[in-house]
Amino acid sequence: MTRPEPLEVRVGVLGLGRIGRMHANLLGTGIPGARLAAVADADPDALEAVTDRFPVPGADDPSRLLARSDIDAVAICTPTSTHVDLIVAAAEAGKAILCEKPVSLDLEATDQAVAAAERAGVILQVGFNRRFDPGHATVAGAVANGEIGAPELVRISSRDPTPPPIDYLASSGGIFLDQTIHDLDMARFVTGSEVERLTAVGTVRVDPAIRDIGDYDTVAVTLQHANGCITQIDNSRRAVYGYDQRVEVLGSAGMAFSDNQAVHGAVVRTDAGGRVAPLPWFFLERYMPSYRRQWEAFLSAYRGENTVAVGGEDARAALVLALAAAESVRTGHPVGIPAIPADETSSTA
Amino acid sequence: MTRPEPLEVRVGVLGLGRIGRMHANLLGTGIPGARLAAVADADPDALEAVTDRFPVPGADDPSRLLARSDIDAVAICTPTSTHVDLIVAAAEAGKAILCEKPVSLDLEATDQAVAAAERAGVILQVGFNRRFDPGHATVAGAVANGEIGAPELVRISSRDPTPPPIDYLASSGGIFLDQTIHDLDMARFVTGSEVERLTAVGTVRVDPAIRDIGDYDTVAVTLQHANGCITQIDNSRRAVYGYDQRVEVLGSAGMAFSDNQAVHGAVVRTDAGGRVAPLPWFFLERYMPSYRRQWEAFLSAYRGENTVAVGGEDARAALVLALAAAESVRTGHPVGIPAIPADETSSTA
Amino acid sequence: MTRPEPLEVRVGVLGLGRIGRMHANLLGTGIPGARLAAVADADPDALEAVTDRFPVPGADDPSRLLARSDIDAVAICTPTSTHVDLIVAAAEAGKAILCEKPVSLDLEATDQAVAAAERAGVILQVGFNRRFDPGHATVAGAVANGEIGAPELVRISSRDPTPPPIDYLASSGGIFLDQTIHDLDMARFVTGSEVERLTAVGTVRVDPAIRDIGDYDTVAVTLQHANGCITQIDNSRRAVYGYDQRVEVLGSAGMAFSDNQAVHGAVVRTDAGGRVAPLPWFFLERYMPSYRRQWEAFLSAYRGENTVAVGGEDARAALVLALAAAESVRTGHPVGIPAIPADETSSTA
Amino acid sequence: MTRPEPLEVRVGVLGLGRIGRMHANLLGTGIPGARLAAVADADPDALEAVTDRFPVPGADDPSRLLARSDIDAVAICTPTSTHVDLIVAAAEAGKAILCEKPVSLDLEATDQAVAAAERAGVILQVGFNRRFDPGHATVAGAVANGEIGAPELVRISSRDPTPPPIDYLASSGGIFLDQTIHDLDMARFVTGSEVERLTAVGTVRVDPAIRDIGDYDTVAVTLQHANGCITQIDNSRRAVYGYDQRVEVLGSAGMAFSDNQAVHGAVVRTDAGGRVAPLPWFFLERYMPSYRRQWEAFLSAYRGENTVAVGGEDARAALVLALAAAESVRTGHPVGIPAIPADETSSTA
Repeated sequence: MTRPEPLEVRVGVLGLGRIGRMHANLLGTGIPGARLAAVADADPDALEAVTDRFPVPGADDPSRLLARSDIDAVAICTPTSTHVDLIVAAAEAGKAILCEKPVSLDLEATDQAVAAAERAGVILQVGFNRRFDPGHATVAGAVANGEIGAPELVRISSRDPTPPPIDYLASSGGIFLDQTIHDLDMARFVTGSEVERLTAVGTVRVDPAIRDIGDYDTVAVTLQHANGCITQIDNSRRAVYGYDQRVEVLGSAGMAFSDNQAVHGAVVRTDAGGRVAPLPWFFLERYMPSYRRQWEAFLSAYRGENTVAVGGEDARAALVLALAAAESVRTGHPVGIPAIPADETSSTA
Repeated sequence: MTRPEPLEVRVGVLGLGRIGRMHANLLGTGIPGARLAAVADADPDALEAVTDRFPVPGADDPSRLLARSDIDAVAICTPTSTHVDLIVAAAEAGKAILCEKPVSLDLEATDQAVAAAERAGVILQVGFNRRFDPGHATVAGAVANGEIGAPELVRISSRDPTPPPIDYLASSGGIFLDQTIHDLDMARFVTGSEVERLTAVGTVRVDPAIRDIGDYDTVAVTLQHANGCITQIDNSRRAVYGYDQRVEVLGSAGMAFSDNQAVHGAVVRTDAGGRVAPLPWFFLERYMPSYRRQWEAFLSAYRGENTVAVGGEDARAALVLALAAAESVRTGHPVGIPAIPADETSSTA
Repeated sequence: MTRPEPLEVRVGVLGLGRIGRMHANLLGTGIPGARLAAVADADPDALEAVTDRFPVPGADDPSRLLARSDIDAVAICTPTSTHVDLIVAAAEAGKAILCEKPVSLDLEATDQAVAAAERAGVILQVGFNRRFDPGHATVAGAVANGEIGAPELVRISSRDPTPPPIDYLASSGGIFLDQTIHDLDMARFVTGSEVERLTAVGTVRVDPAIRDIGDYDTVAVTLQHANGCITQIDNSRRAVYGYDQRVEVLGSAGMAFSDNQAVHGAVVRTDAGGRVAPLPWFFLERYMPSYRRQWEAFLSAYRGENTVAVGGEDARAALVLALAAAESVRTGHPVGIPAIPADETSSTA
Repeated sequence: MTRPEPLEVRVGVLGLGRIGRMHANLLGTGIPGARLAAVADADPDALEAVTDRFPVPGADDPSRLLARSDIDAVAICTPTSTHVDLIVAAAEAGKAILCEKPVSLDLEATDQAVAAAERAGVILQVGFNRRFDPGHATVAGAVANGEIGAPELVRISSRDPTPPPIDYLASSGGIFLDQTIHDLDMARFVTGSEVERLTAVGTVRVDPAIRDIGDYDTVAVTLQHANGCITQIDNSRRAVYGYDQRVEVLGSAGMAFSDNQAVHGAVVRTDAGGRVAPLPWFFLERYMPSYRRQWEAFLSAYRGENTVAVGGEDARAALVLALAAAESVRTGHPVGIPAIPADETSSTA
């Protein structure tokens, strides 16, 4: 009955797991210029939980949603293994696409997905949402606008409060493709420079079951960028004090640091010292502003006001680095990254 | 068509201005145990903006919403002058009530509203949302649990970024009833003690039009509590750097301080010094967690798990203090506050 | 044997209690342009403790030190009751004078001391050292250079960790003359405006013995300045969490806040929250940079590069306010401050 | 004439450059239990600048100072190339020794010095002063007392504001032996675990002259500890925003972070955002508390209350790691560290 206003982009959400429900809620209430227009999930309970709250049609299959003519764009929030097929199908249906990361665990498949979107002339934005975090974006901006000069050293910490279920980990592609990939993208983003050489070390400290599946839970990666900058990344699957997310750049003319913020600003001081609030527990608390701003960037690209902020080539580049990190930790030695033609790199501007 | 699950309290929102829309959005998506069930507003555009997003009936008159049997509770978000009549009507309709502050600018009318809710045996919670801010609540908790000992000095700063339109101010009851009233409630909340004596000074620094309507834009109030504690409040209608909201208590065994948090945690340092992020611009950015937790407290009282956190007597007590502040600034002298029987005071426990 | 270089001001320290020893140590090692040249104290042990460390003559009587021709300036660090006589004597001996605060508990005596220094044409700087604290000076500077516009609200907190011995308090002139006087000076300093009206409230929370000597240990003072600004001061004799010293100004174009700093920057976070370092315990830890910069200002005035930063009129004005605060708390009513001719006020420029 | 009290350790300072003068000033005024007793420097001006301030004998040659019977201990603050000879001479003279880092650029020479002190039965403490920084020590303490569980990831940033003169660098042994060595020691200190494998990358970003002498100015080092912990160190010779010194440990039960502190706590907020104070400019501002506490630890060891906090084996272990880092950056590959017998490692307890 309700007709979307002409200026609102009608978005369908594919997959209503944790991240899909988050996108549905955002689109359902708070993103100027977009509206939630349909949802799809094979699980009827998941479907009803959303369609009960919002007056939108639900489909038990993504293809039914993609077939609708009253949908302009889709958010792909299904498991990673389905991403490429859905990108291809959505592109062929002429829908603009926001796809959660990673696009694929496979380089060739990633290339197919990117090519499909290009062929169809539709937007393909990859869900590296952290680029849109106001703090991290301030760091990237301070490099891009020259305020801190040429980037020389980067430090990125990214630690989850607690490891996901071992079943999830077993199909995740490993810590570098599942967790570090965000930080590899961040390193490219804040430096504006590709990586030429990478060294990774890793260990298992959190859960022996992680070793049993051939993965790591505690890793450190060193990147050497084409512009001479050095990036250090550390990741852990366990930070009992909360979700720890920091990015900093030392430049020739200054430094920029995106620090954590506690959940509130109170301090209690006694003769025993001071106590302060904990960090946010996990990404939905921490990164909500980034998801909001990610949609704003998507809409801006949809309207032709800007190019896509994080495109298929960014997905590819981060995947190349994640695969290289896995190789480095396996061999115990540095890994060179094949040059990527400059015209394919994204810009931080 | 949709039937609320048995454990969900069905809430109708009366008035869809800025604060009413905020409550509708919260209830529409994010409050476990509650659901948005109906909305009312005389303005058809305001109505449609909400009913277009959420599958709920809209009424052009509050009485139509109150007449519905599928509504358990209401949020009264209409102009202050209508609060008392709506509280009385909602109480008679057997609805639980969350009413935005102030209940009324008039003491007798406030008493009538409180009496009506008591007579009907319905919950009446007053919208002093700041009590539910996680930072401010930490301060109150540090007093209530004895961690910082007996409260001795309280400082409360509450500064709006920019004054509201002069038309709004002219019908607001003046700065003490409109703005300071939150802080007067906060002083009672964090100290757990009634006020016996009050001194206020005020001036006009922001806009001469505020003087023309007999109001102030810059005020300082000193409270002397029954337990010997002294509270200092300062308010301004202008803080060009953002919404400044701080509460602190010095106690015999420590201090607790709820400080502002910037909108993000980034710092940029150059040889010219460091620059940090601004404060949130205004209350919807700053106090969203408090609105969420306010609903949680309301639902807890509705389910009988707790008494009402902020009741009619709290509305009355804050109003008494606000009226006394207006008198003090007019006469230039301290004002004694008549004793309020102890059994009528709220608890911070 | 050693001859002071021509550019070094030779300073004698009168009184080697806690503050006098601090000045002797500073002058003995670290103030470019000054040198410790002599010390005086009636207690031979106090004398030896200094002359044992530094190659300077010690006198058991201030007059012997004042009689020396190789002394250019003196720091008066003896008990308050001796200040005026020593200022007069030092002035007559032609010595430049830095006198610890307060100059006197008596207004007339203060005037005599100031007149003596003027008559002799010697510098008289009063030890309101907090003006030279880098943080507080940043606040004053942000007002003076217009960065935050016209000052509208000032908050000053000044809390000692623990009360001094009751004997000290009994001869201190009371909390307003002993402790608040620093904050009254600070209010004049950061606003650049005299006070016209003052209201003080006070109570005894820390030690009943303080009530027995007719004094208070917990006070709040509200100042109304000639320029329309309102200042709120709070003081306590007990802050078990450390020395709490904060100054802030809200202006028409911004705000400036000098916050406490912890003794170090470490935080420890566990699943129980975060813990941070305590504040400095007391003034010697907290204000050492201010004492250093106070000497730099003194030397600058001595060399004629600047006028005296904190002169006799500042001592007088703060004393007037402290006496008025004592009167206000006694009568329970506001006290008007007689106008002080504009040409006698100090500048914050 | 003055005789040191029996409980004061009489310290002679050898070398009166920047760091030697600092130690002389500290000992001359502020270290309970110690006193400055003699100084030595070949430069008569440097000597006089100290003997003019303090009543202590000056020697133009270290051997003359070492020959004095009224000296219990020495601080060796001369150029690195003289350290070993002076340690041997001081040990043979029976003096307790505090030697600035590094003991030597050569492993064998370091061993000789350590052996000489052991043979003579004198204390040899190495000037890794940062261990005594209250913030860094809090981090180490949170590991040592189990508060944050087993250490898993360590991050250490250490950046100088501006490079030293190229002449200094040319004889410094290179950035790893001159600057990183502090951080290599810190990694051992906070983890309480030896390093088994190390990878270093380095580049020249600050000054091409540094490349010309075969050195680096921007380096990143990754350590793999025997206990499974991974440490990331970054160093730069240029941080235009001030001296950046941070240490953090992620443990299985929490994290501990020693952050920088600004030079004061003031913030100025306008509609353009907030500005905060700069960091301390360099080590003498930043690390003064650590130098003080280093002496306290030395005196405690001298009195037999504690073992030496940072001994010869610590100097050796840090040197081994610095040499390995230089090798890794040269070869581009990880370097294994030969095992060091457990009984020779220092304890963080």
